Amino acid sequence: MTTTAPASAARPRERRQRVQAAETGMAVLKALARLGGRASLTALAAEVDEQPAKVHRYLASMIEAGIVAQDSGSSHYRLGPEALYIGLAAMRQADPIRVAEPALIRLREQLGVTCFIAVMGNKGPTIVRFEEPGLPVTVNVRVGSVMSLLWSATGRVFLGLHDDAQVRRLALEELDGADAASRGALDPADPLGPLQREVRAAGCSIVIDTNLKGISAVSAPIYNHAGQVCGALTALGTTGGFDARPDGPIAAAVLAEARAASHELGYASATP
Amino acid sequence: MTTTAPASAARPRERRQRVQAAETGMAVLKALARLGGRASLTALAAEVDEQPAKVHRYLASMIEAGIVAQDSGSSHYRLGPEALYIGLAAMRQADPIRVAEPALIRLREQLGVTCFIAVMGNKGPTIVRFEEPGLPVTVNVRVGSVMSLLWSATGRVFLGLHDDAQVRRLALEELDGADAASRGALDPADPLGPLQREVRAAGCSIVIDTNLKGISAVSAPIYNHAGQVCGALTALGTTGGFDARPDGPIAAAVLAEARAASHELGYASATP
Repeated sequence: MTTTAPASAARPRERRQRVQAAETGMAVLKALARLGGRASLTALAAEVDEQPAKVHRYLASMIEAGIVAQDSGSSHYRLGPEALYIGLAAMRQADPIRVAEPALIRLREQLGVTCFIAVMGNKGPTIVRFEEPGLPVTVNVRVGSVMSLLWSATGRVFLGLHDDAQVRRLALEELDGADAASRGALDPADPLGPLQREVRAAGCSIVIDTNLKGISAVSAPIYNHAGQVCGALTALGTTGGFDARPDGPIAAAVLAEARAASHELGYASATP
Repeated sequence: MTTTAPASAARPRERRQRVQAAETGMAVLKALARLGGRASLTALAAEVDEQPAKVHRYLASMIEAGIVAQDSGSSHYRLGPEALYIGLAAMRQADPIRVAEPALIRLREQLGVTCFIAVMGNKGPTIVRFEEPGLPVTVNVRVGSVMSLLWSATGRVFLGLHDDAQVRRLALEELDGADAASRGALDPADPLGPLQREVRAAGCSIVIDTNLKGISAVSAPIYNHAGQVCGALTALGTTGGFDARPDGPIAAAVLAEARAASHELGYASATP
């Protein structure tokens, strides 16, 4: 706000400038992160396509705020401790359920499939969100259902990609309790190995009638910033009316939505 | 910049406002992180002591930038994916050596002690930065020296606080190679346990003549955002002229500097 101009005249311009300035500040901050968290003024100015003198003023504000720091030697700028605290708080807010929920609606609307999000619970992969189309497939799974690690597409995603001793223990317990017919479908010498290798090779799991008779399902992993599987996104349908081909539209959509959710949780950028 | 006012008149005001606005934006961002990464407009405005209408304009800019997101249900604001990416880039820049280096100068200047930073190398705790006063103590350690996990204060910090199988393996190897006299100073039934418990209880390690005859040392852990020991800050001197008391000024200074370095690496905020 200026002392000379009347408030009425000053306010609109002030507002516009302030918002512009905040957006420029955010753009500089994001550019510094894109450049790996450390860069020269020249490189930063080029990245945001602004004059170095202007970018320098913004960096001064961010250094003041502790969000950016300057190396004494190279005088390069780097992200400072406050940027780290902001990221840690953002991680605590990163929730696979929230980020993947819109995907359930899209899958239901666009493909007319029953779909759900499962996370690893203490009893196994557990459905936490569930969407079904107007004419639902009759399946006995719902929110709260714990899925088989050995026979369901959802479970196999965790079995193959969730590098955790508890998952293996639960899978072996399930194996002990399985009937001879079910066990017969697995390699007696190495019952889990082939299932895990298949998921790791494909990056998703597809089952046809293995878990529920007459039901096919496609499941893809949701990764967090640390590269751990924090959820699974699954679509299912009656084996007759559900395209379960690895290169079919349903598998493609489920994989694309799971990748997008992982990206929002920081997965892509977690690998420098 | 305005179209009416002459550039010369507009520039200083514009610059001041832009920097102010960038700083306000950063303050709102830091406030959202302080509030746990998620808050209502009312709570945020109170936290930064600004009018909600003004804070709302800044939040709009940050949503535009993907740094902040708004929950559909509660309409609360939370840190978005871009904030997470910024934090991940900041973590890649968080370096125990860089953040602790100024501490070495302060310890040398203020206490006249020889001091160094060590990190865990593949052979054991390895000195990576070393500072000594004008009249140095003659010690046979320098940059590149690998410190004993069993007998040095630096090594005991890693032995007691670095929860890693490799540290234990290296310590047991060192124990096998130790002479009878040295081994005699340890509990034959549980040679490592008492050393580890002592460091865990004290939060630092103090040795007198155990590693180098006539030399005392105080070492404190530097933690990263994940709560792992990523370095040790150590001060040493001749046993005669070095105050190695746990409540003495040297131990207090080394602990305070190690805590400050850990904080800059995100340690404090890593524990919600």
